Amino acid sequence: MTDPQARISSARKPFHRLLLTGAAGNLGVQLRGALGAWADVVRVSDIAPLSAAASADLADRAAVDALLEGVDAIVHLGGISIDAPFDDLLEANIRGVYNLYAAAVKHGVKRVVYASSNHVVGFHPVTSVVDVDAPLRPDSLYGVTKCFGEALSRYYFDRFGIETVCLRIGSSFDAPKNRRMMVTFLSFRDFIELVRCSLFTNRVGHAIVYGVSDNPTKWVDNTKASFLGFRPQDSSEQFAHLFEAVAPNADFDDIAQRFQGGPFAAAAPLERDAS
Amino acid sequence: MTDPQARISSARKPFHRLLLTGAAGNLGVQLRGALGAWADVVRVSDIAPLSAAASADLADRAAVDALLEGVDAIVHLGGISIDAPFDDLLEANIRGVYNLYAAAVKHGVKRVVYASSNHVVGFHPVTSVVDVDAPLRPDSLYGVTKCFGEALSRYYFDRFGIETVCLRIGSSFDAPKNRRMMVTFLSFRDFIELVRCSLFTNRVGHAIVYGVSDNPTKWVDNTKASFLGFRPQDSSEQFAHLFEAVAPNADFDDIAQRFQGGPFAAAAPLERDAS
Amino acid sequence: MTDPQARISSARKPFHRLLLTGAAGNLGVQLRGALGAWADVVRVSDIAPLSAAASADLADRAAVDALLEGVDAIVHLGGISIDAPFDDLLEANIRGVYNLYAAAVKHGVKRVVYASSNHVVGFHPVTSVVDVDAPLRPDSLYGVTKCFGEALSRYYFDRFGIETVCLRIGSSFDAPKNRRMMVTFLSFRDFIELVRCSLFTNRVGHAIVYGVSDNPTKWVDNTKASFLGFRPQDSSEQFAHLFEAVAPNADFDDIAQRFQGGPFAAAAPLERDAS
Amino acid sequence: MTDPQARISSARKPFHRLLLTGAAGNLGVQLRGALGAWADVVRVSDIAPLSAAASADLADRAAVDALLEGVDAIVHLGGISIDAPFDDLLEANIRGVYNLYAAAVKHGVKRVVYASSNHVVGFHPVTSVVDVDAPLRPDSLYGVTKCFGEALSRYYFDRFGIETVCLRIGSSFDAPKNRRMMVTFLSFRDFIELVRCSLFTNRVGHAIVYGVSDNPTKWVDNTKASFLGFRPQDSSEQFAHLFEAVAPNADFDDIAQRFQGGPFAAAAPLERDAS
Amino acid sequence: MTDPQARISSARKPFHRLLLTGAAGNLGVQLRGALGAWADVVRVSDIAPLSAAASADLADRAAVDALLEGVDAIVHLGGISIDAPFDDLLEANIRGVYNLYAAAVKHGVKRVVYASSNHVVGFHPVTSVVDVDAPLRPDSLYGVTKCFGEALSRYYFDRFGIETVCLRIGSSFDAPKNRRMMVTFLSFRDFIELVRCSLFTNRVGHAIVYGVSDNPTKWVDNTKASFLGFRPQDSSEQFAHLFEAVAPNADFDDIAQRFQGGPFAAAAPLERDAS
Amino acid sequence: MTDPQARISSARKPFHRLLLTGAAGNLGVQLRGALGAWADVVRVSDIAPLSAAASADLADRAAVDALLEGVDAIVHLGGISIDAPFDDLLEANIRGVYNLYAAAVKHGVKRVVYASSNHVVGFHPVTSVVDVDAPLRPDSLYGVTKCFGEALSRYYFDRFGIETVCLRIGSSFDAPKNRRMMVTFLSFRDFIELVRCSLFTNRVGHAIVYGVSDNPTKWVDNTKASFLGFRPQDSSEQFAHLFEAVAPNADFDDIAQRFQGGPFAAAAPLERDAS
Repeated sequence: MTDPQARISSARKPFHRLLLTGAAGNLGVQLRGALGAWADVVRVSDIAPLSAAASADLADRAAVDALLEGVDAIVHLGGISIDAPFDDLLEANIRGVYNLYAAAVKHGVKRVVYASSNHVVGFHPVTSVVDVDAPLRPDSLYGVTKCFGEALSRYYFDRFGIETVCLRIGSSFDAPKNRRMMVTFLSFRDFIELVRCSLFTNRVGHAIVYGVSDNPTKWVDNTKASFLGFRPQDSSEQFAHLFEAVAPNADFDDIAQRFQGGPFAAAAPLERDAS
Repeated sequence: MTDPQARISSARKPFHRLLLTGAAGNLGVQLRGALGAWADVVRVSDIAPLSAAASADLADRAAVDALLEGVDAIVHLGGISIDAPFDDLLEANIRGVYNLYAAAVKHGVKRVVYASSNHVVGFHPVTSVVDVDAPLRPDSLYGVTKCFGEALSRYYFDRFGIETVCLRIGSSFDAPKNRRMMVTFLSFRDFIELVRCSLFTNRVGHAIVYGVSDNPTKWVDNTKASFLGFRPQDSSEQFAHLFEAVAPNADFDDIAQRFQGGPFAAAAPLERDAS
Repeated sequence: MTDPQARISSARKPFHRLLLTGAAGNLGVQLRGALGAWADVVRVSDIAPLSAAASADLADRAAVDALLEGVDAIVHLGGISIDAPFDDLLEANIRGVYNLYAAAVKHGVKRVVYASSNHVVGFHPVTSVVDVDAPLRPDSLYGVTKCFGEALSRYYFDRFGIETVCLRIGSSFDAPKNRRMMVTFLSFRDFIELVRCSLFTNRVGHAIVYGVSDNPTKWVDNTKASFLGFRPQDSSEQFAHLFEAVAPNADFDDIAQRFQGGPFAAAAPLERDAS
Repeated sequence: MTDPQARISSARKPFHRLLLTGAAGNLGVQLRGALGAWADVVRVSDIAPLSAAASADLADRAAVDALLEGVDAIVHLGGISIDAPFDDLLEANIRGVYNLYAAAVKHGVKRVVYASSNHVVGFHPVTSVVDVDAPLRPDSLYGVTKCFGEALSRYYFDRFGIETVCLRIGSSFDAPKNRRMMVTFLSFRDFIELVRCSLFTNRVGHAIVYGVSDNPTKWVDNTKASFLGFRPQDSSEQFAHLFEAVAPNADFDDIAQRFQGGPFAAAAPLERDAS
Repeated sequence: MTDPQARISSARKPFHRLLLTGAAGNLGVQLRGALGAWADVVRVSDIAPLSAAASADLADRAAVDALLEGVDAIVHLGGISIDAPFDDLLEANIRGVYNLYAAAVKHGVKRVVYASSNHVVGFHPVTSVVDVDAPLRPDSLYGVTKCFGEALSRYYFDRFGIETVCLRIGSSFDAPKNRRMMVTFLSFRDFIELVRCSLFTNRVGHAIVYGVSDNPTKWVDNTKASFLGFRPQDSSEQFAHLFEAVAPNADFDDIAQRFQGGPFAAAAPLERDAS
Repeated sequence: MTDPQARISSARKPFHRLLLTGAAGNLGVQLRGALGAWADVVRVSDIAPLSAAASADLADRAAVDALLEGVDAIVHLGGISIDAPFDDLLEANIRGVYNLYAAAVKHGVKRVVYASSNHVVGFHPVTSVVDVDAPLRPDSLYGVTKCFGEALSRYYFDRFGIETVCLRIGSSFDAPKNRRMMVTFLSFRDFIELVRCSLFTNRVGHAIVYGVSDNPTKWVDNTKASFLGFRPQDSSEQFAHLFEAVAPNADFDDIAQRFQGGPFAAAAPLERDAS
């Protein structure tokens, strides 16, 4: 494949100002370099302190409003990306994403790349393959809040024309950490390519796409999203040696083994500490 | 049709204690009599003051917890049933419904009849017919919060086995108030029958059903929900004389005319008064 | 059912000027009275001489152009409604319908009720049920020209916003003439009601609907067109006594018995007389 | 509805010789009168002794061969219609139905009405609605043998052109015996009408249809089989008073309550007595 | 891949006489060499003068009749392949294709490869992926005439058994000329392979297949046509460098950007010059 | 691809005892080496005498019972894998597979890899592509018995939790023997990999998958089975040179050419010799 980066003119970058939320996170760190090649200015934000970046709480509406000033498009990785007590999720993933879209209307932002999650369909069994129209089956309160984000972004598209690509991201790390991630693995390189497709495809409407590499075992089918042009280059196959082949040891009462969401499906909703 | 009420033994009512939230609302008032025939005790609740009833704010977790003590099943009409500022919806329709399900787990409540809304699919065009598997297309923040409720209840079913029937209620009044309601009309009698089916069907899993009478024009198709046994007895046809026949005057830029959600689809999100 | 006609104000009719093509035909004659109740002026046209009506050849572009002057909506029954030599079909059903839509754009006509035919799907077997999305399977050159009309009207809707309801009319006579028509029968009363729904539904987009009464045996399924509000009142069941019950005598090589199109499917394309 | 029987000429009956297997059974007894009106000769057979009838074991190939001599069409109710030890089912429902079709080829019989069962889909949950294309989910060895019969008859249609209507019969008794049968009830009158449609429809190919009356609660959808012209006249609603309304008491571990097959789904395969 | 050409015996070519219409066009020129390897005689035709070829007007029935004498199979590229005034399209793409099939019946030709176009589905949005069963959405009068050709060929298959492969050809040039063609690009090599598969697959029935190379972005899905064995070898990816990456600049009112048909969808129907 | 075998620890093999039935057959011979790498003990069985192996008749319940003692998982290739007289199929493919599953329940075996066949869908036309949910269309009594095995295994999964992967094996030989096998070819290497995926995937539920290599022409679509991780490495393309390219010579009355099952679809059911 020719390197898509080579098509970026260094003299005149395609975007003027991109906003990256969640910039201090695992994936945010990966993306910062790539975004720098695509935009004159990359405004980065995180609730955690970040050198040379805005520290912003997405649940703070005024702060979000300020963040979006002059922005062309947003890559929204911010919020909580693991299960958490509902009250925390409520602030970060519900109120926060609402604040983001409300501000996007105000500032005329037309494109959002939204980090959704495969946990919106995590209660589909591991013995099925879901396409992008499959019914929602969230596996956790976290997943439920991502359903909320997908529904909210659908509404802002239907009502205001703000285009969103919902990335149902699998497991994006250096390498799969367990057997389940052999299926859900998304290499950093493929993740960056997926964001590139989501930002540069001229028209996306309200799109949903699974963020997985070309792994041997698949629980998802992106055929209906192929208008985005995403073709993964990596596969978890290179990591197969990490996991010794074992006979099936399926415990039929263990929902972590039965559903695509894995441990998310098995966990109980978290509670805040009473202290 | 034989009167289903006749099958209730007056000596031993089927339910011991039913909780009705939103009891002071338009539909709550209709339902109180019927529930009285089905349960020894009908605990009613509303945020508005209500004679002989608990006044409870569903966003208050402790209050919700107290409400559910000893309850067999819940008819949850509470919350905000029109569009409203997001912060209000957040408390009533998101935090409130979360509190309800969290308490349902704690108190072992196994069945909820949840007043969802046709506004979860209100951005489907009026020139289409949606079945219960149609993709969500909320037409308002209100509709988005009902999507949240449907997703949350799905999770509580998958994770905890709490069964919910999501009633995507249309327009339930004495009579249709406008031409759109000729399509979305749900008579009070049919509404009560729909709640009866939802409470008494022995097993419902996580079900979705449209709440409309047998109106001549249909935007929805309940075939896949026919395991609930709901057969409407009324039709908006009796009100056709209220609306003089007119030639089509479709304004193609008027989204209130283009989408099933009508004025909800056209309205802007509401904001709280600044005062 | 209350009489839909009763909703028409005699003082101010809903339409000003309706055009009825094919007014001298079997169905055109049935419709003229009904249209008179709905419009101040009913302009009637036929290629055959017609008292008090324009005699117009739809293949004559200038004549069609004149016909559409000042028209609100069109019920297009004109053209050839049986199989015929290709050159005749070409003029009447291809050039004619093109002329009609080209003139509709020019004159700003926004709604057409187009007499398509069940012969666009006549090569589906009699052992299947087709819905409005079923693939086209024309059973004759006549059926092929109706496919053309459906495709052309789709284009004029997508491109110019002219709404069309394509009526896939079955067999509309006083009574079924043979056993096949027990399935495809459309009573005149139901035909008129179907046209009424097609004209008065405020928004129809580009719709397809089968024109059949509520006959016991069904080869078609109108569920996805129920937004038109068409509910047939008649059934061919009242004519069942005309056809003595016989044992199946299916000749597996007789395509008139195998396919929904009946004799159309079996006939050879017609040729013009050489004379 | 006009009585379909009235269309039978007494002078010349439509069929010459019909074979009814299982004639001594619950449904066979119901059907004998009706068949007499449709055929000059009704040959009846059962493994049980039957006055004025052949006592034949369907597992006996020569006996089956003799039974089919000169037959126009077969209504095959024979075999075991409850769960049974596999070896018994094997003889009656597998070898027996094979013998029947093998003999049908030999004797040129062109139409079979085959008593299949809703137990071929009995492991679909009671919270779903299955149409005639739903995947097979047999709930018992009995149901598995009915799957075999459906597959075998499909093969004999594709290969030899023998048409079969597979009746997935629910619960056909005088009245529903329990709550489940309120859903699966098929009145004797509707059963006879279903057999009539299956015998008299001129062409049926290889058809599948659910045999249920128009009961309020439905687990099945016959839309795709409406080419058979079956419209039930009865409903279990008249028996609703037999079952006092009770609150849901779903035991989530009780598979008899979870699946459409009811006790069949819960039972263990039967074994023959060792004695 | 082994070269499919190598499987052609030079001594005895598989076809005796192939007819290529439209032989002087862009694609016709590409195909002539390949056809020469597959048939003893390649009869070429075009309305434009062509050295060593018949100049024939397809709207001239006698001329078409003469063309088909002794022909085994036809690759029909003739007709107008861009939008044009309706009267011109009528002669070339409607009357012409009718003449071709009428003559094919007469001369016993059993296989046609028909150059349809992706413009039969050009009004599907660029944010969707259409498979070969997607509803027709022509984007131009040209597209409408290709719908006619697909319906006509379907009829000639159902009625006369003439097999046709409808190639919904994208943009077949040396290289993509604009960004849209990066999606619709079909290399000459892949085009020739597609014609080869369409001619040599032993049985094709009436097939539809999209003619696109293996481009990164896809609007179409050929899974259901994979019985043809077409596997593209090229991709537009090699031309990506021609188009500098730019930020989305979707103009929501520009239908050339919104629909797969691009400029076809945006253009007005053409009129013949009045002169 | 890294060699999956490399992930097997030689010190501690994943399975303790695997049972291979049909071990003396064409595919059984191929598989014995591979199984030896995966299990400490491979118990092999065949009805034919086999050196160092149990000779067992699967229709003998006691023998089957003994075979399964201490077994972890079964690869069931046993039974008759070509068409045969029904009585033979009954013993080997119906009683035999029943005995196998009945014994599996008794011995707690949790996984079966079942050699089904593409002949369960062999009456689908060669001009269609079937996915794993396509309706069953057996092409022979042999195919019917494989339908039985699929249905039986579905029941044992739903009722007892025994997981089965049904391999709808195509044509697995050294090389395709005729043109049809160019489509249905499954290389031995791909067959072994398919068995590996079926044994080692931790959870498979009741799965169906087509056993074909990555051949150019495809009649089947495994997308919905991609959770098994099967990716064929071979293609019949390497054998294309064996079959000279010929013009289509479809004989429309030859069902061996019309249906995917080929000669199976055309053959008559076999009878046992009378001798």
